[in-house]
Amino acid sequence: MATAAAVARPPHVDQTIAELKALLGERLTTAHAVREQHGKDISYHEAHLPDAVVFAESAEEVQAIVRICARHKTPIIPFGTGTSLEGHISAPLGGISLDVSRMNKVLQVNESDLDVVVQPGVTRKQLNEFIRATGLFFPIDPGADASIGGMASTRASGTNAVRYGTMRENVLAMQVVTPDGKLIRLGRRSRKSAAGYDLAKLFVGSEGTLGVITEITLRLYGIPESIGAATCVFESLEGAVDTVIQTIQSGIPVARIELVDDLQIETLNFYSKLGLPVKNTLFLEFHGTPAGTAEQASMVQAIAAENGGGDFAWTGQAEERTRMWQARHDAAWATKAFKPGWGMWATDVCVPISRLAECILETKKDIAERDIYAPSVGHVGDGNFHLTMMVNPDDPTYLARAEDLNDRMVARALAMGGTCTGEHGVGIGKVKYLHAEHGEAMGLMRAVKRAIDPDNIMNPSKIFGPIN
Amino acid sequence: MATAAAVARPPHVDQTIAELKALLGERLTTAHAVREQHGKDISYHEAHLPDAVVFAESAEEVQAIVRICARHKTPIIPFGTGTSLEGHISAPLGGISLDVSRMNKVLQVNESDLDVVVQPGVTRKQLNEFIRATGLFFPIDPGADASIGGMASTRASGTNAVRYGTMRENVLAMQVVTPDGKLIRLGRRSRKSAAGYDLAKLFVGSEGTLGVITEITLRLYGIPESIGAATCVFESLEGAVDTVIQTIQSGIPVARIELVDDLQIETLNFYSKLGLPVKNTLFLEFHGTPAGTAEQASMVQAIAAENGGGDFAWTGQAEERTRMWQARHDAAWATKAFKPGWGMWATDVCVPISRLAECILETKKDIAERDIYAPSVGHVGDGNFHLTMMVNPDDPTYLARAEDLNDRMVARALAMGGTCTGEHGVGIGKVKYLHAEHGEAMGLMRAVKRAIDPDNIMNPSKIFGPIN
Repeated sequence: MATAAAVARPPHVDQTIAELKALLGERLTTAHAVREQHGKDISYHEAHLPDAVVFAESAEEVQAIVRICARHKTPIIPFGTGTSLEGHISAPLGGISLDVSRMNKVLQVNESDLDVVVQPGVTRKQLNEFIRATGLFFPIDPGADASIGGMASTRASGTNAVRYGTMRENVLAMQVVTPDGKLIRLGRRSRKSAAGYDLAKLFVGSEGTLGVITEITLRLYGIPESIGAATCVFESLEGAVDTVIQTIQSGIPVARIELVDDLQIETLNFYSKLGLPVKNTLFLEFHGTPAGTAEQASMVQAIAAENGGGDFAWTGQAEERTRMWQARHDAAWATKAFKPGWGMWATDVCVPISRLAECILETKKDIAERDIYAPSVGHVGDGNFHLTMMVNPDDPTYLARAEDLNDRMVARALAMGGTCTGEHGVGIGKVKYLHAEHGEAMGLMRAVKRAIDPDNIMNPSKIFGPIN
Repeated sequence: MATAAAVARPPHVDQTIAELKALLGERLTTAHAVREQHGKDISYHEAHLPDAVVFAESAEEVQAIVRICARHKTPIIPFGTGTSLEGHISAPLGGISLDVSRMNKVLQVNESDLDVVVQPGVTRKQLNEFIRATGLFFPIDPGADASIGGMASTRASGTNAVRYGTMRENVLAMQVVTPDGKLIRLGRRSRKSAAGYDLAKLFVGSEGTLGVITEITLRLYGIPESIGAATCVFESLEGAVDTVIQTIQSGIPVARIELVDDLQIETLNFYSKLGLPVKNTLFLEFHGTPAGTAEQASMVQAIAAENGGGDFAWTGQAEERTRMWQARHDAAWATKAFKPGWGMWATDVCVPISRLAECILETKKDIAERDIYAPSVGHVGDGNFHLTMMVNPDDPTYLARAEDLNDRMVARALAMGGTCTGEHGVGIGKVKYLHAEHGEAMGLMRAVKRAIDPDNIMNPSKIFGPIN
C-alpha cells in the first residue's frame, strides 16, 4: 500500500541529477517528502520513489531535461497532478519525476473554431474556469481535477463521454518532446486530416512511454442552452442497467447517464450530504434546447418507468446540479472516508453494452461471495463501470480476495469482447492483463515503443511491465 | 494521366508469382487489362501497373500471400474498389496487387451493441443494404461506393462526418496481417478502452503501408426517426460559408451541411437532372425526432436568412432525398461528364472553420487568375472542401497551372493551421506537402513504419515517397 518499495538507483543517475541541478537550481529536489509525493498516485499500488523531482516551466526546458536524461539513459516519469489510478507515476526503476504542473497556462482560446491550446499542467477545472466567459466548455471529466496532460496520457474520459467522447476524440493536436530530445508537433487544428499516421492519437493513452507532452490542442463545445439533471431510483439493479441499455439503443443523445449503486449512494450521502434514498440510482443529464432536453427526458423517463424506475427527481439551479456531479466525482473519496484506515483500490472495465447487465450482476455475485466492500459507479452508457474495492488492513486474507475479484472481473470483461480498463489506463496495475486482451498485438505495441524509445527511458515498465 | 509508366520489375518477383500461382491458381493473373485496372485509381495521377494481381478469399489466404511476398521482399499493394483519389493503389515499384474485393461478407451484426464486423471488401452501400432491416445505418459516405477496407485505410469521411465523425471515430477494432505475416487483432468491441496504444487508430489512415486489413469492426447508428433534407440558395459564396460557420459555432447538430458552388450545380443539373438554380447552394440534412429536426431547421433557416440565403427548398420523400444525395456524391463524375475528354484531378484541404471563407475565396481568386475549370464542393461543416480541377489535354500549359493552383491551396490551408488533405489521403499525390505539414513528426512516422515494416514491402512509396 502506501509504503514505498526500495528501488535500485539507475546507473549514472548522480551525474544526471548534477546536470539537471545546474540547469534548474532550486527547481530540482531530492527531498524525501517531495519524492514520496511524486512516487505515489491515489491508487492502491506500491509506491516507488524517483531519485529526484524536477519542475519544468517551458517546453524548451522539458527538452533540455529529456536530453540530459537521454544522455545517461536515466528514466523519466512525467507527472501532472498525481491523480492516476494504476500506478502510472511510480518509479520502479528510479529516475527523474518530471513535474509539469507549473506549465499551467491556457495558451490560445480559438473561440470561433471551438478549440483551445493548453500547457499540460492546466487542470480540467482550471480550463473550464478560464473559458467560462466564452460560452464554451471542455466536457471530459475524470473524478479528480486532473491535468490535461495526464488525461491525454491515460486516455481519460468521465461522465460526459457517452455524448462528447473521450480524450481520444477530443485531442486534435499536441506538441511533445520525444525521447531523443526533439520538440515535435503532432496533428493540426483542423477538425479532420487524412495526411499520414495520426500520431497525436498514438500518444493519447501512451502513458508517458513515448515522450513528454508539452502542449495539447483540445476541442471545445458550446455550453448548452438548456441543461436538465435528475436522479432516478430503481427497485433493481437490472432495471437501472436495462434503462441505460435501452436509452443508448434508442439513440437518445443523453449527455450523462451514470449508475450509482446502493452502497455508493450510502457513501455519497455520508460524504456529500446528498440525502438520497439508498437504492440503485441513475444520475442523468440532458443537454440541448429547452424543447430538446424536455423531449429527451420524457423519452428516458418512459423507458425507466418500464424498468421499475421511479419518477425523475430534478435538480434545481446550477449550484444544486454542480453539487450533485461533484458528489459523483468524489465517489472514490467518499468510499475512502466511509471506511477510514482501509486501503482503496479503484478498478474499471468496459464491455459492449449488451453484456453490461450480465457483467455487473456476475461481478456483484463475486463481491458477495468474497465478502469485499466494493461500491460501484459506472459510465454505463459507454458500457464502462468501476469498483472501488476497499481493503481491510486488519484482515490478512482481504487483499488476496480483492485481487481475485479484480482478476475475475477483467477475465469476464475480456470474454465479453470488452477491455481490462475503460478509462483508468494500464500503469503497473493492469500490465498482467494486457496479453490476454491484445495477444500478438502486444508485439506490435512493443515494436512501436522500441522504435520511438529504443533506450526505454520514458516511464519504463508502464504498460509493458519490467521487460520491454 | 491514364498512361501507365514503365516500372522496373522488383527482384525475385517471378519467384513470388510462381509461389502465389501455386497457392491461388486462377485467382492470380498477370493479364495486362487486369493489371491496368488495378494500377490506376480514379485520380489524375500516373498509373503504375503491378506485376500480378491476386484475389484473396480469406484472412488466412491474405496471411499466406503476405508471407510469400515477405520472403522475397516483393511489394504488396492492397486493393479494394480502386476508387481512391491520390494514386494509393498504383505500383511504382511493381509488386503484387492484393485484391480483397471478394472478401465481402458482413460477418456479425451486433444490433444491440450498435456495431458490425465486416470483411474489408464490403462496400458502404452493400453494408447499409445488408443492415437496413435492423433500423441501423453506417454513416460514413465518401462519394464513391468504396470498400470499408479502403475507407479505413484512407481515413475516409464524407457528408455525414460533421455529425457522426470520420472512419477514425467509427472504427472500433480491426484484424490485420502485418508485414511479417502475423494475423493480429487490434482493439476491442467495447466503446472505450485505455488499455495500451490504440493500434486500430494507427492503422486507420495508414494507407496500406503497415499491413493488410482483413476485418473491421464499425460503429453503427439508429436510423433517425425523422430526417429532413433541404437546399438553400445564396446570393454570395460568403453568405453560404458564413451560414455554415455560424451553424457550427451555435452547436446545432446538423447531420449534413454541404456547400455546392454554382459551377458544380451546373454540372449536377447536367448529369443528375436536378433542375436547381445555378447559384452557390447549401445541401442540408437534419436528423432527430420530428420536433428536433423542425427546431434545428428553423434555427439554421434563421441564420441563412441573415446571410442572404433564400427559403429552404425541402425534398419530399426518401426517394427524392436519396436522389439529391446521390447527385451530390456523383459530383466528380458530373464534372468529368461536363468536360468530356478532359482529365480530372480532385483535391481537398481542411482548415479550422473560422478561416474557411477566406480560404475558399482566395482559392476562387487563384482559380480565376489561372483560368482553371474547377467546380467546388465541400463538407464545410468540418472546414473541408474539394476542388475538381479539370485539365484540358489540348492546352499544353493547363496542367502546370492546375498544379500551381493545388500547391497554393495547400500552402494556404497549412498557413491557416489546416491540413493538405481532409479526407482523400496522401497516396503519391500529396507526398510533397507532408514535410511542410508535419515537420519533424515525419521522422516519427518513418520510425513507426520501419518498426512495423522494416523491408518496406507494404504499399511502398505511399505517404513517404520513394525513399523511406
